[in-house]
Amino acid sequence: MAVAQQVFLRDAMRRLNLTREIFAARIGVKRRALDTWLLPEGSQEFRTMPEVVQRFVTEIVENQHLMEKYAQVVQTGPLRDRIAVEGKHQLLSVEQFTRESVEELFRVADQMQPIARRQKVSRVLEGAVLGNLFFEASTRTRVSFGAAFSRLGGSVCDTTGFTFSSMAKGESIYDTSRVMSGYVDVMVIRHPEQGSVAEFAKATNIPVVNGGDGAGEHPSQALLDLYTILTEFSRLGKLLDGAHIAITGDLKYGRTVHSLVKLLALYKGLKFTLIAPPGLEMPQDVIDQVAKQGNHVIEQYSELADGLKGADVIYATRVQKERFADEQMEGYTADFQINKAVVERYCAEDVIVMHPLPRDSREGAHDLSVDLNPDPRLAIFRQADNGIPVRMAIFAVLLGVENLVQHSMRDVTWSPPSHIGPEDAVFHGMY
Amino acid sequence: MAVAQQVFLRDAMRRLNLTREIFAARIGVKRRALDTWLLPEGSQEFRTMPEVVQRFVTEIVENQHLMEKYAQVVQTGPLRDRIAVEGKHQLLSVEQFTRESVEELFRVADQMQPIARRQKVSRVLEGAVLGNLFFEASTRTRVSFGAAFSRLGGSVCDTTGFTFSSMAKGESIYDTSRVMSGYVDVMVIRHPEQGSVAEFAKATNIPVVNGGDGAGEHPSQALLDLYTILTEFSRLGKLLDGAHIAITGDLKYGRTVHSLVKLLALYKGLKFTLIAPPGLEMPQDVIDQVAKQGNHVIEQYSELADGLKGADVIYATRVQKERFADEQMEGYTADFQINKAVVERYCAEDVIVMHPLPRDSREGAHDLSVDLNPDPRLAIFRQADNGIPVRMAIFAVLLGVENLVQHSMRDVTWSPPSHIGPEDAVFHGMY
Amino acid sequence: MAVAQQVFLRDAMRRLNLTREIFAARIGVKRRALDTWLLPEGSQEFRTMPEVVQRFVTEIVENQHLMEKYAQVVQTGPLRDRIAVEGKHQLLSVEQFTRESVEELFRVADQMQPIARRQKVSRVLEGAVLGNLFFEASTRTRVSFGAAFSRLGGSVCDTTGFTFSSMAKGESIYDTSRVMSGYVDVMVIRHPEQGSVAEFAKATNIPVVNGGDGAGEHPSQALLDLYTILTEFSRLGKLLDGAHIAITGDLKYGRTVHSLVKLLALYKGLKFTLIAPPGLEMPQDVIDQVAKQGNHVIEQYSELADGLKGADVIYATRVQKERFADEQMEGYTADFQINKAVVERYCAEDVIVMHPLPRDSREGAHDLSVDLNPDPRLAIFRQADNGIPVRMAIFAVLLGVENLVQHSMRDVTWSPPSHIGPEDAVFHGMY
Repeated sequence: MAVAQQVFLRDAMRRLNLTREIFAARIGVKRRALDTWLLPEGSQEFRTMPEVVQRFVTEIVENQHLMEKYAQVVQTGPLRDRIAVEGKHQLLSVEQFTRESVEELFRVADQMQPIARRQKVSRVLEGAVLGNLFFEASTRTRVSFGAAFSRLGGSVCDTTGFTFSSMAKGESIYDTSRVMSGYVDVMVIRHPEQGSVAEFAKATNIPVVNGGDGAGEHPSQALLDLYTILTEFSRLGKLLDGAHIAITGDLKYGRTVHSLVKLLALYKGLKFTLIAPPGLEMPQDVIDQVAKQGNHVIEQYSELADGLKGADVIYATRVQKERFADEQMEGYTADFQINKAVVERYCAEDVIVMHPLPRDSREGAHDLSVDLNPDPRLAIFRQADNGIPVRMAIFAVLLGVENLVQHSMRDVTWSPPSHIGPEDAVFHGMY
Repeated sequence: MAVAQQVFLRDAMRRLNLTREIFAARIGVKRRALDTWLLPEGSQEFRTMPEVVQRFVTEIVENQHLMEKYAQVVQTGPLRDRIAVEGKHQLLSVEQFTRESVEELFRVADQMQPIARRQKVSRVLEGAVLGNLFFEASTRTRVSFGAAFSRLGGSVCDTTGFTFSSMAKGESIYDTSRVMSGYVDVMVIRHPEQGSVAEFAKATNIPVVNGGDGAGEHPSQALLDLYTILTEFSRLGKLLDGAHIAITGDLKYGRTVHSLVKLLALYKGLKFTLIAPPGLEMPQDVIDQVAKQGNHVIEQYSELADGLKGADVIYATRVQKERFADEQMEGYTADFQINKAVVERYCAEDVIVMHPLPRDSREGAHDLSVDLNPDPRLAIFRQADNGIPVRMAIFAVLLGVENLVQHSMRDVTWSPPSHIGPEDAVFHGMY
Repeated sequence: MAVAQQVFLRDAMRRLNLTREIFAARIGVKRRALDTWLLPEGSQEFRTMPEVVQRFVTEIVENQHLMEKYAQVVQTGPLRDRIAVEGKHQLLSVEQFTRESVEELFRVADQMQPIARRQKVSRVLEGAVLGNLFFEASTRTRVSFGAAFSRLGGSVCDTTGFTFSSMAKGESIYDTSRVMSGYVDVMVIRHPEQGSVAEFAKATNIPVVNGGDGAGEHPSQALLDLYTILTEFSRLGKLLDGAHIAITGDLKYGRTVHSLVKLLALYKGLKFTLIAPPGLEMPQDVIDQVAKQGNHVIEQYSELADGLKGADVIYATRVQKERFADEQMEGYTADFQINKAVVERYCAEDVIVMHPLPRDSREGAHDLSVDLNPDPRLAIFRQADNGIPVRMAIFAVLLGVENLVQHSMRDVTWSPPSHIGPEDAVFHGMY
C-alpha cells in the first residue's frame, strides 16, 4: 500500500474519532490483532493486515468522509494554503489551525516517525537551507529544529546569541529578514520580544516559523504537546473529546500553556482544571477564548488536591522565577510539586504526566520531581522526542513536500539503539 | 544546448560589450524577442531562441574572440590559476583580477543563478567541508558564505566570536591555519586586523577567501557589487564603460568602496563622483590608483547636489560612527541622506541605488532612507541576493569545479515563492 | 581486491608486528618494491603488488592468526561490542581498549585515509545527526569532530559556550542528555568537570564520545597520538615494542599524556622518560598503572638533557599556566624548551617530535619552538591531521558502519592541493 499500515490505521481511527477498542469492534477484528497491525513495520510482533480489512477500512473512512463532517467542507489545495497567513506559508500562531488542519499536520508527523525513530532516512529537502535564527538562547529548541531539518536532507545555518551583529548597528527587522531571505529557504525565528517574529514574517515571502517570541506564542511546542496527548491516548485507547486535562504551575506567564489550551479547545467537551498559585492564574482572555467553544468546562484551583482528581493528563510547568518578584512566589511551595506520591494519590493508572521542559531539578525548586523518571506515566521524554516528527511535518508542509516524503525514504545504514533512553524499554514497540 | 540560453546570451553580450538594444540590432532581431530569450527558463514568457540565432551568435562571438582582444591573450588553464596568489588558489584582494578574469568569474555566477533562485539544486561539492572562521561578528556575511557553500552540496563548520579558544592560549596564526587546513577543504576568514587573512593564507595550500580583514579588503563584497551593477545595467540596456558612478558617505574608512572603485577602474571612461563629508574623503592612494588607468574622471564633492546629477549608480555607505570621534561627524547631517526626494530631484528614471548593508534605519541616523523601499530603483536587496551566486562562483572556481556545475543540476523538490521579498514582484522574471 | 592495497599491507605488518624491512625480507621482496606498494593509489610512484604476493601475505597472516595470539581469543561480533561500557557503545576512556581492539580501530582509521586526504568521498552516514556539545570552548576539537562526521556524510548540530541555556535554568545532566538523545544519533561532549561526560552517557543509549572532561580523559586525542606514532614508525621502519618515548612539560595536569601513556602501556618493553619541572611530575597512580604491565622502564627527570638522549619520540606539552600559581612555574624556564638546537644535540635523525597543540608561540612562552617548523622530524601537523581519520573511525565503529565505508567511497569532484601545508611537500606520498 502507498502509505505505511500504521499511518493508514491511525489516520482512520482519528478521522472516525474512535478508540482502538471501538474501532476493532467496528471492523469486527480482535483488539489484539489490531494492535499487531499498528506496530512499526520493523518490530518483531508486527503483522500485515489482510487486504480485505484494508479495503473495508478504506470504505468506511470514505463513506464517513463523504457523508459526515467533510461532506460540506471543500478541501482545496495543499495544507499550507489552508493554514496560510495572508496568503503566506508561515507558522506564527496556533490560531492558524482548525481541528481538521491540525490533524492533517499530525498525519504528516506520523509519516515522519520512521525517520525520527532512525529506521529510515530521507533526503527530500536536499539543497534547501534553513536559517535557524535564535536571538535568544534556547539550545534545545534550536537543535530540535536543526535536527528535524537535517533529517529531511536540508542544510542548516545557525545564528545564536542575544545580538545579531548587523541589528546592533541599527538594522531594521525588515532589512534583516529580507536579506536573510535571499540566503535561505525557510527561517525559524526565536526572539525575546512579542510580535517581532510577525514583523520578520511581513518582510519576506519565504516560510517563517515562530520559534517563540517573548510572551507571545511558541506554536511548535503546543503542536508537539497536542500530538503527544493524541499519540499517548491512541496507545491507551482514549479519545481526547471529553478528556480531563489538569494544568499546573505558572499559568500566567507560561506562553506554552496559553497556546496549548487554545489548540485543545478545538476538540469537544474537555474538562480543564487550571491549578496555579495566587497571582499566577491563567489570563482571563485565554479562558474566555476557550470557554466560548466546544462545550468545555473550565475550573480553577489553587491546590493540587482539588484539581488533579480524575485527570487524564497532568501538564506541569516550570515557574519562571526570573519573570516576577519574590513576594509573588510565596504561594509556590513544595505543596505544588508533582511527584510520585501526588500522582499515586490523586490519579489513575493511565494518567500521563507532561512538562514542556526544561524542568528545574535542583533542590528546593519544587518543579516536576525526578522520582517519576522510571514511571511509564511520565511522558516528558516521549513528548520531547515528538519535537522531531512534528517539526519535520511543519517544514514539509510549509515547503510543500509532504507528499514526496513517503517515497523518498530508504533504510538507515547505521545501527541505532532499540530505544534511546535507559528507561524507555517498557515502551519499545508500544507506540 | 550545453549551457542555459540566458547564460549563453548574457555572456555573448558581455564579451561583445553590447547593450541589449545594440545586440538585438547586431543580430537582426527585435529587442522584444531578445528579452523573452533572456528570461529564466521556468518563467511564463520565456521563449526558446531559434537555432539559427544561436549559431549566428556563436559565430560572432568566436570571430570577435579570435580577431580582437582575446587574440593576443593566451588563456591558459582554469580561472583559478590566472587569479592565483603566488601559485595558490586564494581570494585575498580584488587586485587579483583583470577585466577578463572578473567577467569569467561572473559567467560562473550567472550559471549559479538557477540554484541561487531555488529552481535547481546541485551537490557538486558533496563531501567537501568549509571552515567558516569569523574572528569578528558578521552574521550576514557568515550566513551568505555558508548558504552558498551548502547550495553546492558541501558541509560547513562555523567558528564565531572574537576569540578562537586556542589562539587565546597563544597559538600563532600559522599553527591555527595549518591545523584547520587538515580538517577542512577551504577557509573563509573574517578578522578584525588588516593583513591577518594573508597570514592565514601563507600557512596553507588549501583555498582561502578573505571575508574582510579590518581596514583591509572585503573582495567578495566588491565582486557582488560589480556583478550587481553589470546585471542591472544589462536589464536597463546600459554599458558600464562610460557610466557615471556616484559614491557617498564615509569614503575614508569604508573598505568596501575602496575595493569597489579598484574593480570598477578595470573598465573604461567611468566618471566617479565621490561625495563625502569633510574628513571622510576617499584616501589619495586609492584615487591615484584609479586615476592612472582607463581614462577615468574623478570628481570630489562635499554636497549631494553637486555629485548626484546624472549618476547611473548611487552607491551609499553607512558612516561607521564607532570608527571616529564626534567632532568629525559634524559634516554628516540630514543633508547627506539618500532618500526618495533626493533621488527624484537629481537622478534619472533608470538610476540604481546601492548600499553594502547593513543600513542604520534608526531615527536620526541619516543613512539610506527606507522611503525608497517600494521603489524599483532601490537595488540593495537584489545586491544582497547576488551574494549567493557570486560566492558560489568563488568557491566553485577556487576548488576547480566550475565546469561540473552545469551538469550537476537537478530540479528543486520544494516549492519556493515566486519572489522572495514582498516588494520584489515588479522584478520577477525581469533579470 | 576488496580493501585498498595500502590498508591490506599495513594491516599485515601490524598483525605480524614486523617492520617494513623485516616484512620485506619475510616475503622475499625488495624493500623498495614494498615501499611503492605502500603508497596511496593516486600517487605517481604507486605500483600494484603482484597477485602472488597478495596470496602469500594473506596466507602468512591467516596462519599467524590461527596459530598464535588470536588462536585462543574468540573474536565475537563487531568492535563496538568489544569496547562497550556496560553494553553501551561509548568512548569514555582509553581504558576501554586492549592492544588488539585499538589496532582494529586503527585499521578502520587507515581505511578512512583516502577520505581524510580528500581523494575519496563517502556518504555512509547520510541522514545521521551528530550533537557536538561543547560546554567548554575548544574550537579545534569541535571542528575536528564536526568535519570527521561531515566527511562520513552526516549532519552536525553544534552547541558552544560555557552555558547550555536550559542547564542554566536548573536542568539536570540526565534530562539534557536524554532530550538531546531524542534529536541526534551520537553525541560528542566536552565539559569542564571530570565525570560529567560519564553522567551524560548514563542517561542515554545512543553513542557518546568523551571530547575531554576537565582533569579526566580526552581519549580521542590519545588515540590519534598513538595512531601517529604507529604511522610514523611504519614510515621509519620501526616497531613500537621496545621504543623510547620521552614526554616533557606539565605531566601533572596534562590529561592528554596520562591517557597516552596508558595506551602506550598496551605495548611491550617501552622506555618512558618523563621530564617535568619540580611540582609538575606525572601522578604516581598513572606511573603505577603503567609499571605493572608490559615490562616497561619508567625514568623520571627534571632536565631535558637527561631524558631526551636516544628517544624515538619526543612528546612535548604546553604548561597550562592558568592551572597553577606562579611560584610553581619557577622550574619551567627556557631550558625546558624543545627547539632545533636541543633536537640536534640529543636526538637521532629519525626522532619524531609531537605535541597535542595548541602550542604557545608567544615570546617567552618556552613552548615547542617554531624553529622546527621546516624540519620533517616535527610531526605535530601530521599528528593534528590524523584527528580526522581517527575520529571518523570512532564514529564509524560506534555507529556500526565500519564495514560499509570501503564500498561507499567515490572520487572527489574538486581538486585538492597535493599537500595541504606549505612545508609538507617532503612527506607527500610518503605515508
